[in-house]
Amino acid sequence: MNIGFIGLGVMGRPMAEHLIAAGHTLALHRVKDPSRHLVEQGGKSLGSARAVAEASDVIILMLPDTPDVETVLFGPDGVAEGLSRGKLVIDMSSISPVATKDFAGRIEALGCDYLDAPVSGGDVGAKNAALTIMVGGKRAVFDKALPLLQLMGKNITLVGDNGDGQTAKVANQIIVGLNIAAVAEALLFASKAGADPAKVREALMGGFAASRVLEVHGERMVKRTFDPGFRIRLHRKDLSLAVDAAKALNIALPNAAATQQLMNAAIARGDGDRDHSALIQTLEALAGDPG
Amino acid sequence: MNIGFIGLGVMGRPMAEHLIAAGHTLALHRVKDPSRHLVEQGGKSLGSARAVAEASDVIILMLPDTPDVETVLFGPDGVAEGLSRGKLVIDMSSISPVATKDFAGRIEALGCDYLDAPVSGGDVGAKNAALTIMVGGKRAVFDKALPLLQLMGKNITLVGDNGDGQTAKVANQIIVGLNIAAVAEALLFASKAGADPAKVREALMGGFAASRVLEVHGERMVKRTFDPGFRIRLHRKDLSLAVDAAKALNIALPNAAATQQLMNAAIARGDGDRDHSALIQTLEALAGDPG
Repeated sequence: MNIGFIGLGVMGRPMAEHLIAAGHTLALHRVKDPSRHLVEQGGKSLGSARAVAEASDVIILMLPDTPDVETVLFGPDGVAEGLSRGKLVIDMSSISPVATKDFAGRIEALGCDYLDAPVSGGDVGAKNAALTIMVGGKRAVFDKALPLLQLMGKNITLVGDNGDGQTAKVANQIIVGLNIAAVAEALLFASKAGADPAKVREALMGGFAASRVLEVHGERMVKRTFDPGFRIRLHRKDLSLAVDAAKALNIALPNAAATQQLMNAAIARGDGDRDHSALIQTLEALAGDPG
Repeated sequence: MNIGFIGLGVMGRPMAEHLIAAGHTLALHRVKDPSRHLVEQGGKSLGSARAVAEASDVIILMLPDTPDVETVLFGPDGVAEGLSRGKLVIDMSSISPVATKDFAGRIEALGCDYLDAPVSGGDVGAKNAALTIMVGGKRAVFDKALPLLQLMGKNITLVGDNGDGQTAKVANQIIVGLNIAAVAEALLFASKAGADPAKVREALMGGFAASRVLEVHGERMVKRTFDPGFRIRLHRKDLSLAVDAAKALNIALPNAAATQQLMNAAIARGDGDRDHSALIQTLEALAGDPG
């Protein structure tokens, strides 16, 4: 199949590799040095998002944030200018659910289909084609796209209509971020109260406090290994999506807002490119610890 | 063995039953109607905590809060007045770690041993002798008490010195409370953004958002079943221990504090005796929902 792929970063690059490896023809845009091998493997490097859309039946986006997706889709020489009836746009970026509903409507008005399909699982999940993919869109469009998504991920759920995939991703990032804050506050408390945080974590693993975050990020906090992983800078972006949407929807998300503030402080102290488990260091700094 | 047991509430009653069933002789205090059968089964009902301590080699407390433990231990006709060298006090209540260190020191000054051994697992865990027990104290004292603790619990950890069991319990309650707030904020967000919270929860179960709370309390939120379980009123007490200790230790626990505030609001709207998963209803009320 002719597939366009725009956004060849840490996540997009291995995802595009899986599509090429499965025999698909890829049209690419903005190919930089780390992605040069994709061209050697048969990918075509084109000069605009419009050209990618013209050359492809399915156009996949994997971009940093909402404005990037808007520009690539609807800016000058963008995807929308190259679309024709029956083509499919799959946005796998993590962006605003509200903007997504708007983007989907504008793409559908051109006679095309749209899926939002953000992922979780990080660069390791992308490399191992083991991403969790949360999809919003029509059932028939999802069924059509599923064989492609299965080349990149494993746990693939149609959550609902357009925007609902992004909503699920934001919900995911709320829970992961707040669970990290929970474990960080608990282990800091344990340590300052004079207990061994490693022993406390062990004692808690079998009970109601059990979580993937206590297991994985709790261990990073205890062992002081803060290499990403998932960068605080990116998680702050995701919590900003939550807090911005909360304002648009007039709902109060006090813990998401407090955790976003902590991430601001983490970035201020130079931890933006560390793993999100490094949030415990911000709490430690607030408690007077150097470091 | 001659065991004293003071605090025959929802938790203490089934715990005392397991000790009697294993052949131990129990001295009891403040036996009320729901515990009358313990006397029929051989328990001796005595007139004071002092009398219980005089009659027992090991005295177990299972009381609501720090002041209750202080009164029973050191008040008039309290346990301390009935102790003699070599006896053991095991406080299984969930109380202040800081106060616990003080209590332990005062009991040890009488030539006796002290363990703090708070539990998690709720009334179901108590009935099934499947409590998680987090212990603080000396290794030799822990080893001596272990056969008794094994009659009431399964996952039994010596976390460290006196106070560290209570510290682990507070850490547990921080994580559980904040994970509940996380799931509540995420599912409220999903619902208000137009997605089906049940589908969103499903999509998230396999990834980094996975937790016992997403599994158990998330299901209660989706199914709207808020019977306790564990009452918001009691969880607020536990978060108050965290927030009070944070003040004593000069550490900032912003999410624990925010969640404690939400629990205040939950109790204000009449949800104090509902399960802590009902915290989502407080967020819903803040978002303009009736109910």
